[in-house]
Amino acid sequence: MKKAAVIMGSDSDMPVVKGCIETLKGLGIEVEAHVISAHRTPDGAAAFANQAAVNGFGVIIAAAGKAAHLAGALAARTTLPVIGIPIKSSTLDGLDALLSTVQMPSGVPVATVAINGGDNAAILAAQILALTDDGLAKKLVAMKKQMMESVIEKDSKIQAEVQSI
Amino acid sequence: MKKAAVIMGSDSDMPVVKGCIETLKGLGIEVEAHVISAHRTPDGAAAFANQAAVNGFGVIIAAAGKAAHLAGALAARTTLPVIGIPIKSSTLDGLDALLSTVQMPSGVPVATVAINGGDNAAILAAQILALTDDGLAKKLVAMKKQMMESVIEKDSKIQAEVQSI
Amino acid sequence: MKKAAVIMGSDSDMPVVKGCIETLKGLGIEVEAHVISAHRTPDGAAAFANQAAVNGFGVIIAAAGKAAHLAGALAARTTLPVIGIPIKSSTLDGLDALLSTVQMPSGVPVATVAINGGDNAAILAAQILALTDDGLAKKLVAMKKQMMESVIEKDSKIQAEVQSI
Amino acid sequence: MKKAAVIMGSDSDMPVVKGCIETLKGLGIEVEAHVISAHRTPDGAAAFANQAAVNGFGVIIAAAGKAAHLAGALAARTTLPVIGIPIKSSTLDGLDALLSTVQMPSGVPVATVAINGGDNAAILAAQILALTDDGLAKKLVAMKKQMMESVIEKDSKIQAEVQSI
Amino acid sequence: MKKAAVIMGSDSDMPVVKGCIETLKGLGIEVEAHVISAHRTPDGAAAFANQAAVNGFGVIIAAAGKAAHLAGALAARTTLPVIGIPIKSSTLDGLDALLSTVQMPSGVPVATVAINGGDNAAILAAQILALTDDGLAKKLVAMKKQMMESVIEKDSKIQAEVQSI
Amino acid sequence: MKKAAVIMGSDSDMPVVKGCIETLKGLGIEVEAHVISAHRTPDGAAAFANQAAVNGFGVIIAAAGKAAHLAGALAARTTLPVIGIPIKSSTLDGLDALLSTVQMPSGVPVATVAINGGDNAAILAAQILALTDDGLAKKLVAMKKQMMESVIEKDSKIQAEVQSI
Amino acid sequence: MKKAAVIMGSDSDMPVVKGCIETLKGLGIEVEAHVISAHRTPDGAAAFANQAAVNGFGVIIAAAGKAAHLAGALAARTTLPVIGIPIKSSTLDGLDALLSTVQMPSGVPVATVAINGGDNAAILAAQILALTDDGLAKKLVAMKKQMMESVIEKDSKIQAEVQSI
Amino acid sequence: MKKAAVIMGSDSDMPVVKGCIETLKGLGIEVEAHVISAHRTPDGAAAFANQAAVNGFGVIIAAAGKAAHLAGALAARTTLPVIGIPIKSSTLDGLDALLSTVQMPSGVPVATVAINGGDNAAILAAQILALTDDGLAKKLVAMKKQMMESVIEKDSKIQAEVQSI
Repeated sequence: MKKAAVIMGSDSDMPVVKGCIETLKGLGIEVEAHVISAHRTPDGAAAFANQAAVNGFGVIIAAAGKAAHLAGALAARTTLPVIGIPIKSSTLDGLDALLSTVQMPSGVPVATVAINGGDNAAILAAQILALTDDGLAKKLVAMKKQMMESVIEKDSKIQAEVQSI
Repeated sequence: MKKAAVIMGSDSDMPVVKGCIETLKGLGIEVEAHVISAHRTPDGAAAFANQAAVNGFGVIIAAAGKAAHLAGALAARTTLPVIGIPIKSSTLDGLDALLSTVQMPSGVPVATVAINGGDNAAILAAQILALTDDGLAKKLVAMKKQMMESVIEKDSKIQAEVQSI
Repeated sequence: MKKAAVIMGSDSDMPVVKGCIETLKGLGIEVEAHVISAHRTPDGAAAFANQAAVNGFGVIIAAAGKAAHLAGALAARTTLPVIGIPIKSSTLDGLDALLSTVQMPSGVPVATVAINGGDNAAILAAQILALTDDGLAKKLVAMKKQMMESVIEKDSKIQAEVQSI
Repeated sequence: MKKAAVIMGSDSDMPVVKGCIETLKGLGIEVEAHVISAHRTPDGAAAFANQAAVNGFGVIIAAAGKAAHLAGALAARTTLPVIGIPIKSSTLDGLDALLSTVQMPSGVPVATVAINGGDNAAILAAQILALTDDGLAKKLVAMKKQMMESVIEKDSKIQAEVQSI
Repeated sequence: MKKAAVIMGSDSDMPVVKGCIETLKGLGIEVEAHVISAHRTPDGAAAFANQAAVNGFGVIIAAAGKAAHLAGALAARTTLPVIGIPIKSSTLDGLDALLSTVQMPSGVPVATVAINGGDNAAILAAQILALTDDGLAKKLVAMKKQMMESVIEKDSKIQAEVQSI
Repeated sequence: MKKAAVIMGSDSDMPVVKGCIETLKGLGIEVEAHVISAHRTPDGAAAFANQAAVNGFGVIIAAAGKAAHLAGALAARTTLPVIGIPIKSSTLDGLDALLSTVQMPSGVPVATVAINGGDNAAILAAQILALTDDGLAKKLVAMKKQMMESVIEKDSKIQAEVQSI
Repeated sequence: MKKAAVIMGSDSDMPVVKGCIETLKGLGIEVEAHVISAHRTPDGAAAFANQAAVNGFGVIIAAAGKAAHLAGALAARTTLPVIGIPIKSSTLDGLDALLSTVQMPSGVPVATVAINGGDNAAILAAQILALTDDGLAKKLVAMKKQMMESVIEKDSKIQAEVQSI
Repeated sequence: MKKAAVIMGSDSDMPVVKGCIETLKGLGIEVEAHVISAHRTPDGAAAFANQAAVNGFGVIIAAAGKAAHLAGALAARTTLPVIGIPIKSSTLDGLDALLSTVQMPSGVPVATVAINGGDNAAILAAQILALTDDGLAKKLVAMKKQMMESVIEKDSKIQAEVQSI
């Protein structure tokens, strides 16, 4: 199975990205993580994206805030699927990062997940990689089932709690 | 290579979806398209998503406007990657569809592209399917190169046009 | 009198939903509450909505945040009135949940109340059920009168407070 | 069965309201329609709401644009369920009307439907009135079934259309 | 000189309204303050506005949050100038109150000040009343001069502070 | 009675401003209109505002679009009430002009009306001037009554129209 | 005097960019214009920015729509001032381009002008270049004076027009 | 080398402005800072801008919140480049200040940076002044290199951190 890259624009994005990496590793996916900035290390971003396919990656996850160009800058130089996580920063509640990530021009898509949606970026990456890995696909089905059972369990607890209101 | 499904919430989404289907077919991807509504034919949506993996699909593209639940409703019932196209309707300029599509809760991602981004949804689907199909991967690289050359050609034309200003 | 269902997409919605349940019970309405997720337990949502009318419910209240599809997913499968409470989550101040809940396509309405408006969802449910229950209707009239008197009392207190400014 | 009132803030709202009235009449619901403005005829609004229950109405639909106070002004004076239709006007794409209608303070709910959602307001009103009218309930179930079949029919047509792309 | 009325939709608006009242009193304007709700005490609102001119008021200030109808409801029943203060509440940062207050339909203006702009509402009221009271006009000119001098003084302090950076 | 000034930032604002001037003249108010730009003729704006009170104006109306500073720039130099009309321009639907006009800092209020609300600016100006002119006050009451009657008349017409649906 | 570069992300931006080029040329500034896309020709963008200073440019103007990364991508690779023009495209009224252009992370500024503000980008570029060119500085002063006179002339015309209302 | 002016609309803007001044001084640029308000000290603002070029300034930075007119008011009276920093205040997350600063009318540009982007305003000012000062240009290139190296260093640290997840 190919590797997943997790690129963050700044080390301050780590709180969101950490959950993403944990989910990927929990699913048995090999992860390589980097701090690379589209604006501060553009050559690094270009080099990484240019070589990503050759280097064994199957999917790239990019997390960035504000005028979040990172995912788009990587997508400009690879035909691998690039997943963008818009990061909420100190103003505008992540709307700037969401629009900067999702509103890509025709020809260069970024697969955008929810603001601060690190966990979902990992799952989406796994869904993509699972197309060629039946073991991973089964883990995703199991995870979905467990998620369902967790909700059902919470439903039971709420029933009891509501009785006493 | 697995098939791509293109689901639209209403036949009025066809103008955006048509470009998506053309791009997929142009890349040699087998496409099955449907009008299925999360709200008007929920059983149809459930049945399609439940059987999508078994039926040979590798990726699902869902286009919907307003409170655009279609992509999320499908993603709820499959571990295949689901790509969402928010459709601009008569009010709010597509912002409602964008937020309804992208802001998915943890555990159920939708890979969201730009508002009315039918073409990019197709390319993203192809990028995902290309992970297991070298021929498709090469077509994507060629398409990217052609896109680059088209911009360079336009650059030359603009040079001439600007001289005369 | 028919029962009211209160469905929340996650147990984290309980702080808003609790006031809703208290108001319903305070008005003597029989309540059944559940955690059911449109995205994590779609079969549970479908089963609940399909059977809601037969099971003696007269109205369904659904609370959810972010890409809030819960109310719409239930409304897709019942002709009972469905009331949606958009929940404010960690980004976008509830605007995503509001638009995902209220902007329903033609044919499948959701009666949307204010962001985090648990109390109003309960009162709206009571207003609907009161059409067939004179006792409940009188309670609502009394509640409205009490609300009015409470404002008048506050007005008196403010008068005194303002004198001393 | 009780009557439905359809109140519009201005006769310029008629294009949206007309569909609402047609749907109500098509379902066999007796409709009384008025132009009443919360700001230009506040006494008329007060009188109508104060007497609505006594006059045999079971539900009130109110359509207004901009700082859309009409639904709230009526809801302030009745315990009947009030449905609000935010109308899109020449600026802000209906966002002003949506927020003015839906963000009601605790104690006075307005059941808000989508911007320009006249049809859904009618169906929601019918769903409410159907709680006491089995005939109407059956019509709503039939309408839902027909809506589903219409989508399935469109799905077939799209299949053919897509073949030729 | 005529009196100023300060109406708040809820006693929770007092923190913003208090500064407004202090400024009015500081300028020697007679103030009458009330808690009156457009939605909870609509008769009280109607009665107040209907009698405001006769009762010696020259201007009405109304503060309210969310679907802020208070200023508009008063303006509907008086030809006195009505000043609206949109109050920021727990969601949407006051945008809902701003749009509900300012976007009034043709014929019924509300003079809207900034979100939580209690102080400016008081000054605007004073500017209006000063048209018939030279003493008040002079106070406003003096206040404006003092405001200017305060900025100039702060400018000096900042100079010193910046030297040491 | 004092005069009203109507200042527009650009002659392209005339379509909105024209209705404002007509309403003022129709109420018998003496009007002086100017094109003065806060950004292109700042000295002209300063000179006008500095002399406005001395020159016999009682109220200033300012209409501007985009980063609409005109009303604020005038309010900075006069203690006369300044009414701001945010003008909708080619992008952002007037939201930029609304926020630039209404969100004034403490100490310098602008009485803001709806986007493109030329008519309401005129009525608000008249309400202010009417505090010292009983004749004008009576005209405003009459105008309000006529507005009410016009709505009632439209109500009758709609009744007939609805019968035939 | 150094040259100005005008880069557009797509030849469809030409209508806005044309005015920009005309203004620059009208001020006697040497202009070089290109179609370069941050996403479609990232190497071209990198090469241009890397060599811009050496190639005699003093300022770079970049126009792009949607997730407008062009200005930021150029600013990442040069210490020349980069001016960004957000272009309005078919959805969201240019808000996406504005936020993608202006909300740059610390360290890499983009001097952003108004949405579609091609003319202002040219004037800002000229203001920057004029710091080392007294002749250009005088042209800007003259242009500002002419702009002022044009407003004064329009003021006179409006006076006449208003008389006849 | 010419001086940089840093003007803030209120001393409460100092937390954002301080970093701006530090960056300028760190680059060896002579700075003069002032508290000047477009609305409270309009004559001060006019005087400063009118004399800025003569007084040896090469660039003006203006920071203001809410209806942020300061940068525009200065730009109205000088042909020096004016950089605007929109300040986030207690409501609307800085969107009001951003739109009030950036959406300037044709003819009077403001070079707008990110909300609270004090650091970037300083760098942009330095980039402008560096066009005539090779020493400063070299410092900017060095700063850009250091920024790059800092990211690369953080990348190494993250690698280690991610290993242990």
